[in-house]
Amino acid sequence: MSAPFQVTKRVEFRETDAAGIAHFTAFFGYMEEAEHAMLRQLGIKVMTADPDGTISWPRVSAHCDFRAPIRFDEDLDVLVCVEELGEKSVKYGIRFLHGETLIAEGYTIAACCRVAADEKPKSITIPSEMAEKLATMKSPT
Amino acid sequence: MSAPFQVTKRVEFRETDAAGIAHFTAFFGYMEEAEHAMLRQLGIKVMTADPDGTISWPRVSAHCDFRAPIRFDEDLDVLVCVEELGEKSVKYGIRFLHGETLIAEGYTIAACCRVAADEKPKSITIPSEMAEKLATMKSPT
Amino acid sequence: MSAPFQVTKRVEFRETDAAGIAHFTAFFGYMEEAEHAMLRQLGIKVMTADPDGTISWPRVSAHCDFRAPIRFDEDLDVLVCVEELGEKSVKYGIRFLHGETLIAEGYTIAACCRVAADEKPKSITIPSEMAEKLATMKSPT
Amino acid sequence: MSAPFQVTKRVEFRETDAAGIAHFTAFFGYMEEAEHAMLRQLGIKVMTADPDGTISWPRVSAHCDFRAPIRFDEDLDVLVCVEELGEKSVKYGIRFLHGETLIAEGYTIAACCRVAADEKPKSITIPSEMAEKLATMKSPT
Repeated sequence: MSAPFQVTKRVEFRETDAAGIAHFTAFFGYMEEAEHAMLRQLGIKVMTADPDGTISWPRVSAHCDFRAPIRFDEDLDVLVCVEELGEKSVKYGIRFLHGETLIAEGYTIAACCRVAADEKPKSITIPSEMAEKLATMKSPT
Repeated sequence: MSAPFQVTKRVEFRETDAAGIAHFTAFFGYMEEAEHAMLRQLGIKVMTADPDGTISWPRVSAHCDFRAPIRFDEDLDVLVCVEELGEKSVKYGIRFLHGETLIAEGYTIAACCRVAADEKPKSITIPSEMAEKLATMKSPT
Repeated sequence: MSAPFQVTKRVEFRETDAAGIAHFTAFFGYMEEAEHAMLRQLGIKVMTADPDGTISWPRVSAHCDFRAPIRFDEDLDVLVCVEELGEKSVKYGIRFLHGETLIAEGYTIAACCRVAADEKPKSITIPSEMAEKLATMKSPT
Repeated sequence: MSAPFQVTKRVEFRETDAAGIAHFTAFFGYMEEAEHAMLRQLGIKVMTADPDGTISWPRVSAHCDFRAPIRFDEDLDVLVCVEELGEKSVKYGIRFLHGETLIAEGYTIAACCRVAADEKPKSITIPSEMAEKLATMKSPT
């Protein structure tokens, strides 16, 4: 059990739209930033070279529910945890807060894959060293 | 019952990433383009001014499952239909195809709202004229 | 001498900002779309594999002057021509029109380069077959 | 005379392209982030409400020269200063460094404008209080 990993960011002007609020597509970019910042802290590289090639983590699913609007220059706490840790994939739970207000919540599912140029990524078992690190970020159940 | 609405686009270079494929966030932008193109064809404005202000359609949910990678310059057929038509919201089902290959599939849910600057959007009943137009795009069940 | 190549697009909602207009960064994306569409019509690939590796066209410079705002759902004609054709680089002149109104104008300069993973791109002479195709798009002087 | 304002960021995965480097369009987003962070530190709001409406700073020009590629997860120091302070506009000089390596350099010019919904922004004299703050960021000449 662990506290979620957190990054704080501001809504940039280019991320807002003509309705005056952060556009829904911006949240998926925030998700990636928070997910990658957490992996960096855990010491897991997004692209890992090993003797057999490269291991990476393409997303197989992404979801977001939007609860309240957020505007330019407002700050957004993005909280990430490992919601489910499978043999070959990991589900990150992500919540977006402005102060106490829940702005949005969702998840991404990333599959551990061996990737090579011009080939379809191949799903593999998460290397045990990586799985152990990810397990430290599991949310309380 | 109706055939889905379709737009065809190419994957732009800036939408690809260092893994050589369209980045997962790009698909949510494609979703909006296809959804808005369908609304335009139906004669529904994304922002409609009426005597009481402005009606718009903020997303309350967005989801995408990624089935196969797609690369720069490849074409992508984006198929949209109305999957569910509620009293106050609409769920668009969206599929992404490259030829016969299913690349991704997902949905967005948009709430019909009265919007005003600096106020939280207020959910309203979809005006009947708009609901009738949307109903023509319902997918077969 | 040649008429400029033209693509027409609509301003997408996610490309607008809280000031209600297309954000200045969107224009650089439009530039790439138009440039690549022109290359496609000329039969030049953005990434060309040959026996020695890959030839590509990274930008060495990009510039845009913004003359008038443009809003969501308005159409934008993007006109591209070859403004200067050097031995190793090409300068594309780009103008953005909404009807008769000049919205923006600028240029990109792309260097013909041999590219390889994890190496800095190396500037090379534009292959003659490509140079001949590009020359057909030179603007009147 | 003043040291330039600096923000440090990492290249996000979605900002890279299939050539494995940060896409040229990403730099214009970085420019805005750095410019706005500097304004925030100076106590200048990007959108200022006053009795006569709203004052904002649309860009009239943006330029960037790309000197060296930068890759995913590498850090980028973005240095901003006021290069020219006119009566009605300000030119920000911006340099991008990865360690000692110059990655890119350019500028934006923003016009001080009174803005209102559905009207073209009107250029105005920069209010003296704002001009004084901006003047503190002038680069040595």
